[in-house]
Amino acid sequence: MRQLNIGICGLGTVGSGVLSVLQNNADIIREKSSCLIHVTHVATRNTNHGCNVENIQFSNDIFEVARDSDIDLVVELIGGTSSALELVMLAISNGKHVVTANKALIAEHGTSILQAAYEANVIVAFEASVAGGIPILKSIREGLVANKINWLAGIINGTTNFILSEMSSKGRSFESVLEEAQKRGYAEADPSFDIEGIDASQKLSILTSMSFGMTLPLDHLFTEGITKIPLKDVYFAKELGFTLKHIGICRDHGEQIEARVHPALIPDSSILSSVNGVSNAVMINGDAVDTTLYYGPGAGSTPTASSVIADIVEVAKSDKNAYSSLGFPVEKLCQRKMLDIDLVECGFYVRFTVVNETGVLSKITKIMADSALSIESIIQRDVEDDSNRVDIVLLSSKTTQSNLSPVLRKITELDSVSDEFVILRVEYLDN
Amino acid sequence: MRQLNIGICGLGTVGSGVLSVLQNNADIIREKSSCLIHVTHVATRNTNHGCNVENIQFSNDIFEVARDSDIDLVVELIGGTSSALELVMLAISNGKHVVTANKALIAEHGTSILQAAYEANVIVAFEASVAGGIPILKSIREGLVANKINWLAGIINGTTNFILSEMSSKGRSFESVLEEAQKRGYAEADPSFDIEGIDASQKLSILTSMSFGMTLPLDHLFTEGITKIPLKDVYFAKELGFTLKHIGICRDHGEQIEARVHPALIPDSSILSSVNGVSNAVMINGDAVDTTLYYGPGAGSTPTASSVIADIVEVAKSDKNAYSSLGFPVEKLCQRKMLDIDLVECGFYVRFTVVNETGVLSKITKIMADSALSIESIIQRDVEDDSNRVDIVLLSSKTTQSNLSPVLRKITELDSVSDEFVILRVEYLDN
Repeated sequence: MRQLNIGICGLGTVGSGVLSVLQNNADIIREKSSCLIHVTHVATRNTNHGCNVENIQFSNDIFEVARDSDIDLVVELIGGTSSALELVMLAISNGKHVVTANKALIAEHGTSILQAAYEANVIVAFEASVAGGIPILKSIREGLVANKINWLAGIINGTTNFILSEMSSKGRSFESVLEEAQKRGYAEADPSFDIEGIDASQKLSILTSMSFGMTLPLDHLFTEGITKIPLKDVYFAKELGFTLKHIGICRDHGEQIEARVHPALIPDSSILSSVNGVSNAVMINGDAVDTTLYYGPGAGSTPTASSVIADIVEVAKSDKNAYSSLGFPVEKLCQRKMLDIDLVECGFYVRFTVVNETGVLSKITKIMADSALSIESIIQRDVEDDSNRVDIVLLSSKTTQSNLSPVLRKITELDSVSDEFVILRVEYLDN
Repeated sequence: MRQLNIGICGLGTVGSGVLSVLQNNADIIREKSSCLIHVTHVATRNTNHGCNVENIQFSNDIFEVARDSDIDLVVELIGGTSSALELVMLAISNGKHVVTANKALIAEHGTSILQAAYEANVIVAFEASVAGGIPILKSIREGLVANKINWLAGIINGTTNFILSEMSSKGRSFESVLEEAQKRGYAEADPSFDIEGIDASQKLSILTSMSFGMTLPLDHLFTEGITKIPLKDVYFAKELGFTLKHIGICRDHGEQIEARVHPALIPDSSILSSVNGVSNAVMINGDAVDTTLYYGPGAGSTPTASSVIADIVEVAKSDKNAYSSLGFPVEKLCQRKMLDIDLVECGFYVRFTVVNETGVLSKITKIMADSALSIESIIQRDVEDDSNRVDIVLLSSKTTQSNLSPVLRKITELDSVSDEFVILRVEYLDN
């Protein structure tokens, strides 16, 4: 039976989950995988980890694990990108495989880490870095290996999905749900990493690289969070047959790659619109398989541990030469030109207010028609105050921001139109 | 670069899909997998296959492929269980790996096929046999390897899901949708294989075996189709907040295994209820990961080809000793005792008619209460005819058929109650 000695660095939420699942499910993991996974060394500065570390070498210094000559594989679960990078590079240079759940590390330094791993003939695996317990990277890399991936769209941040789900189902404001999310541990004290879309953009960077065989495009992703979403627009979206979600989307245009993270209206007929709460889901369109979707918990101690351990077993069973972390051999990863966000095609939801007077709507629709911009739906609704203004909501068919902007400028020039616009993208997910 | 010579037996819908995807995506498959997949031999009696077989040896006799000494792997896509079994066994005994999409073959003969493969040190892989293009077997086998699987529930037959989706969304009768499904090629001229649940039960057999490490339990699965579903019940279900789906479900009870295929009410809050049309989806609950779901096309030429080719690449890359087709080593697969369907716990939907007279409902609810059977919801609605009868719909909390039956017998004894009951199971999918 194959044996693998592993060292775990970090015994926080994920690290303690990995250790406990390896201990509790030792028999079934051995039986299924025909591998013996021995945790021989753990390192943490956290003295309150609550884990059973009997018969396991214990260090306060994580680098001790990477230097331990008995260890075949280092599990990096300390987070951050500074010490983690140093640890992973040391492990690789000492000929050890690495499994990590660290999306920031991979999104920022993945290309150089994988290059180092390639040269040292070791594996670096990071299933848990995207969409927690969902085996999404394995599915793209192996399950869909026969496909040219056309596009991918995912709900890949549980915090923002929880907030938008609660706003939509219970009519609560962004601020009130955020506060609850913080109380329930779904959002950090400083929530900006999640709600500004940074977490999602790191994950999308990994998914984009893996879908199209390119270097990690983190610095080139358009990223927008959900802090500016009024409840009113969640409801107008619903009325139009859409659900507002924070999504990451990437698409192969041949010469250029499109990749972006932002809130978007998703048709209620798409299964992606039914993904609620802290769950994650990734929808992938491949040229042979058409569209598949992978759904599950995007975070949490034992769900994330499930993915970390799947990686450990894969390392134990894999032929090192046959494994490509990003689904393409690292030496084949190339830079791709990114499509400017202004040139990305999608539908647009536009809301603004006008003075409630005869003829305004016809002026607006004429401007749209003159610009050859077709309108899918339109809502006109009294604003609930004494202002004699109405909300106008327009849903455009597919176009680009650079086509839309001059039209909106013309609309603004009308006397009765406010100059504040709410603009959201609409993803039909239909091709 | 690894090379694999393969022979394809059968150039029907799936076989021609496999050949064309291998040809059209040859570059990307080679690049992603670092493997060269050569189709060196095809065999079919179908002269109208429309495939490009230039430079490929062509036989009318499928057994020629299994005897071809240049071939490393035989792709069995002829269907059926007679010649297919003979072909697969011949290929194995000639030391060739086998990839198949044949669920009937695996469900009926999988245990002996895998035993023969184990002895010959070759791989038999069958991702495409369950849920078409969705990489579901790989996800259970590898992605969720760290988990003890608690239960699994899936929509694994596209024909029945199409029929129920259309009935629900458009108010059409079973017969009318079946006719359309046949016209559109979603159902065979003789549709009984799909609508009686046989196809789903073969797939569930494979999923059950893989989830719990047991021999294939096909002969012991409770199987019920959708031919007896009145449209009225689809609507009552909807009113109660449920969607009627044809599902396969299996669960590990420790001493016994529960596995069954039948129509069931699924809560609208579950993402499984949003799976419409010919799509498939499988929901899996594991002790570490909690619940994940895998969604996509359950059939079709190139979606199924996507899974067949993923298997071929996996065979090319795998260490033969480290691969277990069913996720557990074949020598570890054991028989498990199956739980009698009458003892399976679930909710029940019961509809019957009573004469519309004072006091009937209270007699019925008293019988339920006396039997300690709690009612989650109740609907009373006039029958749309001149009969002065009303439909009564009861939704019970979780119980068993053997607890329910005596209660229903007592209700039947009431003067005003019809003796025709519609009984459907309710799956809350909550643990």
